Amino acid sequence: MKEPLRIAIAGIGTVGGGVLKALHARGGELAERAERNLEIVAVSARDKQKPRAGDISGFSWVADPVDLAKTNADVVVELIGGEEGVARELVEASLLAGKHVVTANKALLAHHGARLAKMAEDRGLALKFEAAAAGGIPIVKALRESLIAHGIVSVTGILNGTCNYILTNMEKTERSFAEVLKEAQELGYAEADPTLDVGGGDTAHKLAILSSLAFGTQPDLENMYVEGIEKITPDDISYAREFGHRIKLLGVTRRIGNGIYQRVQPAMVRLGSPLADVDGPFNAVVADAGAAGPFVFEGRGAGEGPTASAVIADIVDIALGSFEPAFGKPAHTLAPLVPAPLEAASSAYYLRFEVLDAPGVLAEISGHLAQFNISIGSMIQRAWAPREPVAVVMVTHDTTQVAVSAALKVIAASDKVLAPPIMIPMEAG
Amino acid sequence: MKEPLRIAIAGIGTVGGGVLKALHARGGELAERAERNLEIVAVSARDKQKPRAGDISGFSWVADPVDLAKTNADVVVELIGGEEGVARELVEASLLAGKHVVTANKALLAHHGARLAKMAEDRGLALKFEAAAAGGIPIVKALRESLIAHGIVSVTGILNGTCNYILTNMEKTERSFAEVLKEAQELGYAEADPTLDVGGGDTAHKLAILSSLAFGTQPDLENMYVEGIEKITPDDISYAREFGHRIKLLGVTRRIGNGIYQRVQPAMVRLGSPLADVDGPFNAVVADAGAAGPFVFEGRGAGEGPTASAVIADIVDIALGSFEPAFGKPAHTLAPLVPAPLEAASSAYYLRFEVLDAPGVLAEISGHLAQFNISIGSMIQRAWAPREPVAVVMVTHDTTQVAVSAALKVIAASDKVLAPPIMIPMEAG
Repeated sequence: MKEPLRIAIAGIGTVGGGVLKALHARGGELAERAERNLEIVAVSARDKQKPRAGDISGFSWVADPVDLAKTNADVVVELIGGEEGVARELVEASLLAGKHVVTANKALLAHHGARLAKMAEDRGLALKFEAAAAGGIPIVKALRESLIAHGIVSVTGILNGTCNYILTNMEKTERSFAEVLKEAQELGYAEADPTLDVGGGDTAHKLAILSSLAFGTQPDLENMYVEGIEKITPDDISYAREFGHRIKLLGVTRRIGNGIYQRVQPAMVRLGSPLADVDGPFNAVVADAGAAGPFVFEGRGAGEGPTASAVIADIVDIALGSFEPAFGKPAHTLAPLVPAPLEAASSAYYLRFEVLDAPGVLAEISGHLAQFNISIGSMIQRAWAPREPVAVVMVTHDTTQVAVSAALKVIAASDKVLAPPIMIPMEAG
Repeated sequence: MKEPLRIAIAGIGTVGGGVLKALHARGGELAERAERNLEIVAVSARDKQKPRAGDISGFSWVADPVDLAKTNADVVVELIGGEEGVARELVEASLLAGKHVVTANKALLAHHGARLAKMAEDRGLALKFEAAAAGGIPIVKALRESLIAHGIVSVTGILNGTCNYILTNMEKTERSFAEVLKEAQELGYAEADPTLDVGGGDTAHKLAILSSLAFGTQPDLENMYVEGIEKITPDDISYAREFGHRIKLLGVTRRIGNGIYQRVQPAMVRLGSPLADVDGPFNAVVADAGAAGPFVFEGRGAGEGPTASAVIADIVDIALGSFEPAFGKPAHTLAPLVPAPLEAASSAYYLRFEVLDAPGVLAEISGHLAQFNISIGSMIQRAWAPREPVAVVMVTHDTTQVAVSAALKVIAASDKVLAPPIMIPMEAG
């Protein structure tokens, strides 16, 4: 057997603890698969005294995580998080010190992925991050190594378990976003500051990574439309069902012509299609691999077990000497992302207006839509309440977000329209 | 860039042609990912003159496929098929000649996988077979490299597109197995001799491979119960729906205690569960990865694009020097499979009896079931037709196949029972 692989871990929270636990419980089996022992040589975390599920007294403790780069570790596992600060310093210092890096840090990779991949490759080192997108689902490996023969057409994912949990529970209990979010926070399913999750930022980080793997471009957060789930109401969810759909926060990246179209946005997913039945904390990814067809991957998107599973798979890859380029293609060949013109991405749209039930209001709305060449496929107005506020819901024929946004801006200015209109794309398939 | 990877291909049918096409169309992109050119140095097939979609005139033709082992190829791709004969000779000769092997041959691996893996590893060679199970779905890689941290509990798959197509169409058109099979043959979805597909043999081969990857055991076809879909009737499909289920041919492998339980059998899958919605030619695999949770993988199970995609991913892995052990663990550590006692695998069962509608017949059947400790959860007898043949359908509470088989043997002997009873397990989850 080869020399043991020496591992240093920064961040001993849920995921780090899970990695230690699994390495402890299944060390022999994993050593057999890795063809060498996997040995923790040092750990570091914010607070040494914090009560932890696993016993860390047997490991050498390093007070400053960045100093893990100075240990004799072969691999540094970065589980601190955040696109700047300690996490970035540690990853850079580790690569500079000739150490392989495994990280679950989606923010870091979305912001600095191309540069870090180059740093690693220039030094013959691995930079691995299966845990950074879709938790335990091996989608990073699938895009990097498996679905490569025909070229990816699009990747569509439910990538944030908190949002999916909230949307699932809003539907089940017919409660508001705010109420369900509060409950999720109490149960520990949502952070005290939930902005990164519910605002779509976390999904954006993951989508930037998947997009890079799928299309061989540098991760790019700039050319991406990002919208969260905060504005979704129980009414939207109930109308969605009436149209045979369900609302999911989707990350979508798609090749259109020579450009890439990226967006994070709540979308209407047809009941019966693979993403519609992905409930609660689960994540799922649909990858359209051209002539190889569509693939669906589903699994837990976060938590101790799934994330530790992804981290350990990366460690074993490194132990076996599998050093594919971090994003599938050599870092120097990763091209800057060329955005597809927004007009190129067409779909039907669900629109909801809060209006005063007065003569002429429908004529006004449909007139403005027509002005932007948007034609209406179906319409629901449930209440009949002269001079009262009512909801008017429409589903358009195929159009573009550019046209819809422009039309809604004009419509919102009407004094008969009582609240900012809601638009949700209808996802094809 | 490194030296080109030299490739020889045996078998230029649908899959081989697809590999040539994709390498031709996307050679530059794949070379970038593989960090070297992928160069076809020789091809061989049964009939050189046969009309083909792709042009093979530019490749060196070798009349006897086994002679590809004597070429200067680094990798031999075996797409001939069959557990013995030319395919086996070629794979063995190639490994003996120091060549890596990529194969789509499930029969060969199910029968000789452990020995071939050992041959490859002893020589520092790769033996790769992503295309051998579930077509384009990267389930071989996922089990071999990704879902390893916590140990697999079970793998359940729809692994044969022909059977799934037939069952889907029997449900949609309410026609018999024989009629739908005939149509599938005319459309080219089923072979002239469909036995290997509809009898469950092909699924058994794939299951043996997945079982080995999941549990680190030698592929084992002996300790496997195998039953095909030939006996399924439109009535069974309609009763299934009445119970909120759908019939699918499943391959199941599960760790129970220290043993492994393997079966290929039509099973009732609950509507709304991931496998129930897998239609037509699609394949899907649910892997329960313990603390990492359940994972679902879905995609096309056969055909040019998906299978070529899997073959090319293996080739690129080899080009990059990723030589994990063929079945995840070093071949010499693959233990013979210890079968779990059949009594350990319990589930509910759907039972259908064709009986004479006569006094006492229900008492007789339920009496025999009770004798074997089988209790009945629900029952349907649609027709009331004294002295005529009627169908009696039952769903039992949890029991074992051993008990059900024994009870049905006794029941079948009754002169009021007009045809061999049908039993179909209700799949949990």
